Amino acid sequence: MLLGAVTSAGFADEGMWLYSDPPRALLKERYGFDATPEWLEHLQKSSVRFNSGGSGEFISEDGLILSNHHVGADTLQKVSTKKNDYLKKGFYAATLAEEIKAPDLELNVLMSIEDVTARVNAAVTAGASDEESFKARRAVMATIEKESKDKTGERSDVVTLYQGGRYHLYRFKRYTDVRVVFAPEQQIAFYGGDPDNFEYPRFDLDVCFFRAYEDGKPVKIQHYLKWSQAGTRDGDLVFVSGHPGRTDRLLTMVELEYLRDVAMPRGLQRLYRMEVNLNSYSGRSQENARRAKDDFFGVQNSRKARKGGLAGLLDPELFGKKAMEEKTLREKIGAREDLKDTLAAYDRIAAAQKVIAENARPHNLLEGGSAFNSELFHIARTLLRAAEERPKPDGERLREFNEAGRESLELGLFSDKPIYPDLEELQLTDSLTYLAEEMGAALPLVQKVLAGKSPDARAAELIKGTKVNDVIFRKKLYEGGRTAVDAATNDPMIALAKSVDAEARALRKIMEAQGEAKQQSHAKIAKARFALEGTGSYPDATFTLRLAFGTVKGFEEGGKQIPGHTTFAGLYERAAEHENREPFDLPQIWTDSKAKIDLGTPFNFVSTADIIGGNSGSPVVDRKGEFVGIIFDGNIQSLVLDFAFSDVQARAVSVDSRGIVEALKKVYRADGLVSELNTGKRAE
Amino acid sequence: MLLGAVTSAGFADEGMWLYSDPPRALLKERYGFDATPEWLEHLQKSSVRFNSGGSGEFISEDGLILSNHHVGADTLQKVSTKKNDYLKKGFYAATLAEEIKAPDLELNVLMSIEDVTARVNAAVTAGASDEESFKARRAVMATIEKESKDKTGERSDVVTLYQGGRYHLYRFKRYTDVRVVFAPEQQIAFYGGDPDNFEYPRFDLDVCFFRAYEDGKPVKIQHYLKWSQAGTRDGDLVFVSGHPGRTDRLLTMVELEYLRDVAMPRGLQRLYRMEVNLNSYSGRSQENARRAKDDFFGVQNSRKARKGGLAGLLDPELFGKKAMEEKTLREKIGAREDLKDTLAAYDRIAAAQKVIAENARPHNLLEGGSAFNSELFHIARTLLRAAEERPKPDGERLREFNEAGRESLELGLFSDKPIYPDLEELQLTDSLTYLAEEMGAALPLVQKVLAGKSPDARAAELIKGTKVNDVIFRKKLYEGGRTAVDAATNDPMIALAKSVDAEARALRKIMEAQGEAKQQSHAKIAKARFALEGTGSYPDATFTLRLAFGTVKGFEEGGKQIPGHTTFAGLYERAAEHENREPFDLPQIWTDSKAKIDLGTPFNFVSTADIIGGNSGSPVVDRKGEFVGIIFDGNIQSLVLDFAFSDVQARAVSVDSRGIVEALKKVYRADGLVSELNTGKRAE
Repeated sequence: MLLGAVTSAGFADEGMWLYSDPPRALLKERYGFDATPEWLEHLQKSSVRFNSGGSGEFISEDGLILSNHHVGADTLQKVSTKKNDYLKKGFYAATLAEEIKAPDLELNVLMSIEDVTARVNAAVTAGASDEESFKARRAVMATIEKESKDKTGERSDVVTLYQGGRYHLYRFKRYTDVRVVFAPEQQIAFYGGDPDNFEYPRFDLDVCFFRAYEDGKPVKIQHYLKWSQAGTRDGDLVFVSGHPGRTDRLLTMVELEYLRDVAMPRGLQRLYRMEVNLNSYSGRSQENARRAKDDFFGVQNSRKARKGGLAGLLDPELFGKKAMEEKTLREKIGAREDLKDTLAAYDRIAAAQKVIAENARPHNLLEGGSAFNSELFHIARTLLRAAEERPKPDGERLREFNEAGRESLELGLFSDKPIYPDLEELQLTDSLTYLAEEMGAALPLVQKVLAGKSPDARAAELIKGTKVNDVIFRKKLYEGGRTAVDAATNDPMIALAKSVDAEARALRKIMEAQGEAKQQSHAKIAKARFALEGTGSYPDATFTLRLAFGTVKGFEEGGKQIPGHTTFAGLYERAAEHENREPFDLPQIWTDSKAKIDLGTPFNFVSTADIIGGNSGSPVVDRKGEFVGIIFDGNIQSLVLDFAFSDVQARAVSVDSRGIVEALKKVYRADGLVSELNTGKRAE
Repeated sequence: MLLGAVTSAGFADEGMWLYSDPPRALLKERYGFDATPEWLEHLQKSSVRFNSGGSGEFISEDGLILSNHHVGADTLQKVSTKKNDYLKKGFYAATLAEEIKAPDLELNVLMSIEDVTARVNAAVTAGASDEESFKARRAVMATIEKESKDKTGERSDVVTLYQGGRYHLYRFKRYTDVRVVFAPEQQIAFYGGDPDNFEYPRFDLDVCFFRAYEDGKPVKIQHYLKWSQAGTRDGDLVFVSGHPGRTDRLLTMVELEYLRDVAMPRGLQRLYRMEVNLNSYSGRSQENARRAKDDFFGVQNSRKARKGGLAGLLDPELFGKKAMEEKTLREKIGAREDLKDTLAAYDRIAAAQKVIAENARPHNLLEGGSAFNSELFHIARTLLRAAEERPKPDGERLREFNEAGRESLELGLFSDKPIYPDLEELQLTDSLTYLAEEMGAALPLVQKVLAGKSPDARAAELIKGTKVNDVIFRKKLYEGGRTAVDAATNDPMIALAKSVDAEARALRKIMEAQGEAKQQSHAKIAKARFALEGTGSYPDATFTLRLAFGTVKGFEEGGKQIPGHTTFAGLYERAAEHENREPFDLPQIWTDSKAKIDLGTPFNFVSTADIIGGNSGSPVVDRKGEFVGIIFDGNIQSLVLDFAFSDVQARAVSVDSRGIVEALKKVYRADGLVSELNTGKRAE
């Protein structure tokens, strides 16, 4: 299946397509739709990537951007205080002056794509070790990025596609002065809370408006989406343009087994403990709940998504199908004299997977940082490593310290977002405990980290003792380089980061070499696949811009037909059914506004478009390219899309453009905003 | 330390003392208190064991029993329905006719103790293998119990003390017709919820009243506690008589390391996932929350307790002290010619621990049942095994099927408590997933259990297909024996239990043999310890009746002095401080009654008595033996008492007798109940 579904079967709305290789023929054939280069370019350049993890879109010439509330939550959390809890209570800036600047939000718009596969591969000498190959590849990628950045001034990323089958250079326009315009109460944005998350029918106003600025003024935008007045009807063809984060559809069975038996269970275990911990902390006071709110949502959300993904891998039907596909492909490869050498690539992946399995636990703890769940630790480590990496030639640095990414790194590092010492202490205590549990309390390395103290005493000492919470101190160390950092090793957090850095780097090196071995092997398999099936396919998701398509369509569940759209009437029914109790309670303003609302207005809808986490906030557009909705979720049946597409029950869930306008008008009386949506520009 | 603290240092209020070996000299010396045999017998026979896991006490001659709300919760959950949620909303029977019978609650009162160590040890032949020794010991214990039961008619249990150093025969009066008299709202019983659990200051009315019946009438009781009118003051000597469940103070370092590095982390991981699962289920509706309430509380409670215990083991000070104690004891043993052979016992324990470590994971899953978290599975397994075990001679059966325990087994097996299929399905799905995660989905045994299906499909099939939810069906199979059970293997749950039984039993056999090896070794160490330190000590807790003592006394925390008592005024202040939000909200009746309550009345208090889980519901009595309070918790600093006693900060938390009466009078107007407390008998 995988690619096959499209090229051979040809009836499923599968695919997270590259803008450089869009499914034009397919759309023409199946839907009689001509996705012209102009149509595609307009949609591409209207699409926005939220580097905090999500998608969005320009919707006015004055830089107005729409995304999900849960994508904006990270920023809302950072600009909130005990007194002004915008995440919980919502926010509306009726004038530009009231808009609130995000402390560290970076948005990217994809401007151009260039295939650099040949140049990247040419840098790797035949017969080089995995470690050497990795170094050579890292170096050439840094060089390409730097050259491009110097030439165009644009953010330039070499992205890896088809697990190493292709390398593309993506150039982005960056926006770093981004301001909050409107957010509803989290209660209605995330109506139904964890129980309704990843479920359908839904009734969520999961939207958040931002505006991009340059030189202190709203940017003038050429490509933005026109707001549809008509919306969607059942059976309509729709398109989704956004940034799916990660899929694993091209993995080999050995890799899938590892995910199923090791990586996903282990990841879930950690999420379970984090969820319990944050829930327990949040229960202590309203202020605690406020401080932990966005983290708590994130952990709950990941837990539910991964549980669904694991359930998919534990479904013998899905897993069996994946095994059969691999078997078929391997047989086809084996039958072709010119391809059969490729089979060795599977063995090489298996061998690499074994080494990865042996090192994953300490790697995740020390380099991945799950032993140090603390913002302050990560700041300390970044300062430490920046001092070591920045003097090196660009191509030899750890990738996150490359020149091309410097501005983005500094934006995050010097953010003055609030960091709460009590929450830091709680999370560091638990993660140090996790370290001791996972590696054994008696291990010398664990003893070194704990420094003869219990995890709670050690966490308290580190959080209370470090100065990296001070942005000025951070800048001093960053700019002062190695001398400044060496002089600061009496800072306990910097000293801790330093004390585990050799081990962490060594583990990273092992993993990178194995990753390189896998990447080379996947590249070979991809080549064989292209030879057998043609290139009319799409790579696994990598948080790069993709185009998906599908139809607006309900589904059957437990013998019941779930309609494609929900309405405001359904929202009020659901609240009544649960006696307006949390998480099914309505904000007061929604109760008060009920009589004014047209209850038949569509609120949320589902489509068969192929999406995954990262697509949150993606625009849904119609044939005209007009905005008809915004993706905010997948249903529970969609959680297996990580591994294989299906459109039997799996659906993408969106907020309807009509519902958004109705709510803005009738509930929030945000007339200025409504006018901007309808006219495509700010009213003067 | 351990025992040493009492016999040598002699200033800490340490000890969970056996009634057969009470600390009379110690009490005399330290407190000038003479615990006469009559005083002790009265307290012993007023003390009640809740076999569901907890303690209680008789408080009127008409069989009135007081325990904690959280001990009674198991029964309150079982007698509640969607319409009448007594667990949440409380209950009061003003007349006998209104009292509600518990479906399967068994209470035990300890009537006599007999030392049978010599007879038990004599049954084990020198040179026998661990497996043979275990069988011989099991057989002689069954025989002793059966003889005693036949002779006295009383429930007779041979209990293992000092990890195998002593065997005592305990005879109990059983009560199985137990009725609910009064319970407050869970909101006030467990005021402050998970955040306040194991914390102090506290404001909880954690009480629940029951009445024991025989032949349809309230029993007439000779030994019951007089209700104190005076209560306690700071510095007062108090006694606690109850059933501490388990401590691990006498474990060797090898065993403690295993607990710290393996058993506790693994147990916690399972609790984390169960808590998330139940919380998520509960969030879906009020009725879900009701169904899961007691389980959810239990899981949260265990999680917080074990987290505290693990933190203790990860505290180098505590762990180092334990290591030092073992070192000292081993040196003393090694220095005595007549004892030094005992040192080999430490090696034998280490060897046994190694085998246990190798088998613990599958054992816990298959025999421990963590792969099958379902009431219906456990019923099916009990039916299956009963059919196999009951035809065997008593001494050869699995211990839970011994004749002496038959009535208790049947009480549980034929309980008509509600079992909710949706909750069963949820928990079975998760535990089958856990099985696949822990053992690998590809393992043949896992494949057999899942029968080619995904965990959720398999769980649905099992829960929907089984008939064991029907008590009549259960009786038919139980009484029909092996023929009936063999004929019922088309019941999928019975078939599942059967399909893993050989593996489960084999693992149990291994663990029992290793347990026997450890027990024999601990017996040797105990003997050496007695020789070195005398017998004036107490064994680890084993859910048998124990006497503890201490003084009413506040403690210092974070530089602040926490007073010994709280008052109702503090309760209302805490609610106000949290804007009366969950879990700090007050039931409406408490808000309404505020003006009537004497706000200065003591509500909860702390003492230095040595307690642990299982002590919940234990009476606290003064020198006169009068009831001054009821244990319901320990503070967070007490969670390490599992491993070592301390009275620096660790405190036992009780509801004050004066607070109980004030609440019953002023809030609940339970005049009949108040009269019964004050007079020691029911008003006619």
